[in-house]
Amino acid sequence: MLNFDFYNPTQILFGQGQIASLAKQVPAGARVLLVYGGGSIKHNGVFDEVMAALAGHTVAEFSGIEPNPSYETLMRAIAQVRQEKIDFLLAVGGGSVIDGTKFIAAGALLDEDPWTILEKHGANIVAALPFGAVLTLPATGSEMNSASVVTRRATHEKFAFMSRKVYPQFAILDPSKTYSLPVRQVGNGVVDAFAHVMEQYMTYPVNAKVQDRFAEGLLLTLIEEGPKALSDPDDYDVRANIMWTATLALNGLIGAGVPQDWATHMIGHELTALYNLDHAQTLAVVMPSMLRVRKEGKRAKLLQFAERVWNLKGGDEDTRIEAAITRMEEFFEQMGVKTRLGDYGLKAADIDAVLVVLEKHRMLKMGENRDVTLAVSRKVLEMSL
Amino acid sequence: MLNFDFYNPTQILFGQGQIASLAKQVPAGARVLLVYGGGSIKHNGVFDEVMAALAGHTVAEFSGIEPNPSYETLMRAIAQVRQEKIDFLLAVGGGSVIDGTKFIAAGALLDEDPWTILEKHGANIVAALPFGAVLTLPATGSEMNSASVVTRRATHEKFAFMSRKVYPQFAILDPSKTYSLPVRQVGNGVVDAFAHVMEQYMTYPVNAKVQDRFAEGLLLTLIEEGPKALSDPDDYDVRANIMWTATLALNGLIGAGVPQDWATHMIGHELTALYNLDHAQTLAVVMPSMLRVRKEGKRAKLLQFAERVWNLKGGDEDTRIEAAITRMEEFFEQMGVKTRLGDYGLKAADIDAVLVVLEKHRMLKMGENRDVTLAVSRKVLEMSL
Repeated sequence: MLNFDFYNPTQILFGQGQIASLAKQVPAGARVLLVYGGGSIKHNGVFDEVMAALAGHTVAEFSGIEPNPSYETLMRAIAQVRQEKIDFLLAVGGGSVIDGTKFIAAGALLDEDPWTILEKHGANIVAALPFGAVLTLPATGSEMNSASVVTRRATHEKFAFMSRKVYPQFAILDPSKTYSLPVRQVGNGVVDAFAHVMEQYMTYPVNAKVQDRFAEGLLLTLIEEGPKALSDPDDYDVRANIMWTATLALNGLIGAGVPQDWATHMIGHELTALYNLDHAQTLAVVMPSMLRVRKEGKRAKLLQFAERVWNLKGGDEDTRIEAAITRMEEFFEQMGVKTRLGDYGLKAADIDAVLVVLEKHRMLKMGENRDVTLAVSRKVLEMSL
Repeated sequence: MLNFDFYNPTQILFGQGQIASLAKQVPAGARVLLVYGGGSIKHNGVFDEVMAALAGHTVAEFSGIEPNPSYETLMRAIAQVRQEKIDFLLAVGGGSVIDGTKFIAAGALLDEDPWTILEKHGANIVAALPFGAVLTLPATGSEMNSASVVTRRATHEKFAFMSRKVYPQFAILDPSKTYSLPVRQVGNGVVDAFAHVMEQYMTYPVNAKVQDRFAEGLLLTLIEEGPKALSDPDDYDVRANIMWTATLALNGLIGAGVPQDWATHMIGHELTALYNLDHAQTLAVVMPSMLRVRKEGKRAKLLQFAERVWNLKGGDEDTRIEAAITRMEEFFEQMGVKTRLGDYGLKAADIDAVLVVLEKHRMLKMGENRDVTLAVSRKVLEMSL
């Protein structure tokens, strides 16, 4: 096991009816900014429940946080926070809204241009406004971590930052609020959570038995419950299992004490920034090829994955590995997320542009062994056509 | 899945060499009280490393915290804290030292007799001194939770309390510091952690798939690594896996959203208070009989335990259940912890006294279904002879 420093102070209020607890979670007397997206919360009852719970608080609104939240939009929110002397933020939505709120929370208290937060990956954050989250879309884990990804539309750049100052104070997870999610978002969410686990699990063994068992438990749960969320969308326990799994997939726990990869995510970010694929779509496209290309470095864990997650025990090693990767691909497809670049209209000619931006962003030595060079990234993308 | 409220702000600094991080974890300028036990930390190098890291801090000492820490001893520590205006506590030791430090932290700031903390199970705690922990004995999980158990020697009472005010601010877990533990403490620690998982796992199904998988992962790890800690005491990864497992066994995570039992612990506490058995010895004695007596209420989870933890799939249900319980007993014995009351010199005539104190402490309806009456407790103890 590797040394680690684990810290996660976010309080999780989980279950049906928990939105009402906002009344006591949001500090009395706070000037609250409600941050949300495109308005789906106005149709599924979440907005009304939130506002009812906040009766007695001073609440302003900022709507219009887009998927892959943009610096341009978030800067308008920061202007509003400063002008209206907001001192508490409440993110209501999915990972994009929560990621955006983290940027608003830190950016509003920064003296320099908030874009520097992305350039410095959060190292220049010294303070952030306190905030909470009401999660409506299980996927990214942002509700219980200190990371955020923001896109600058003008320059097609998508960068991440981390800071212990931007843990949500609390997150409310009510699985019944996810019944009405569009099929595409359900599938994306499950694939996203699956990929998060894989980035922390599918590296090389360091004899971290608990982390491995936990990661495998999350993968097995997604495999068991994901398809049910599509076939039986109003099953509370299915939604609850997916929601809690997605949170635990990226709250720092399974990644503590083990090597991590994240090369799939880095290439995926560029595909989203350049060609506007959904985040999960990019992961479903890149990850299978990433594992095939890097099979030797990941052999031991691929075999463990094959046995413990897919129950593949027969045949020679390479057969089991290929079967496990194929099963993963089939699972992504079963969740409605296509796994080839061609499925999204991309062709061989579109790969060069990805490599240009990977180079520009210094993504030259990615992965747990820092051996994912531009040449490897090219091979992965070509295999994903 | 049941609704839950999960919150755990303790920072974990894990790995070899982490004691040095005390230098920055303990606030500059704090008046620190080092709280420890019988002096083993003076022989294994921990004391010297701690003092070296705290050079530059004002450090007082309180030693002599005993196994099953006593109110009487802890009140002397509280007197010292008040007299010397201590404002930060550092527990260095195992669960007893950390439990005791929680009581000191809360009791020192209480206006009434600190024993009321035990009588009220922590409900009267409004503030506590901040404290950290350096763990030397993986077992109780106290290093990352908000619970504590204190014994009043004069009255043979052993009570628990909980409060979100008594989470350690940080806990340092260096597995290499556990190499020198006596065999008895290694065995006790593994059995204690195993029992903690079981109290939260072995109830009835609520379709909480992640919690079940996590619990099973912890049990499997203890089964795989526990015996190695006895046969190969200087294996770092073995010690690391046991240490992190014991912490995760009782940090609130696997118990969030599921029913919990704890009847074994309640009877065990009385056995320790009356007859001075080690805590883990009481669990090893009581738990197998507890599962046998309450087999019907726990049938579904016992079958899951048999299959997933012990790989028992053949034969009829009752055969599989009995085999799983027997395997658990054999595992406890393999860890050097005897599983019969008779192994500790206790006889049928000693059972009545246990029932008298269970009744006195109102332990009349224990367990996840509140159906562990005094009659059930008697049956469990008789079966444990």
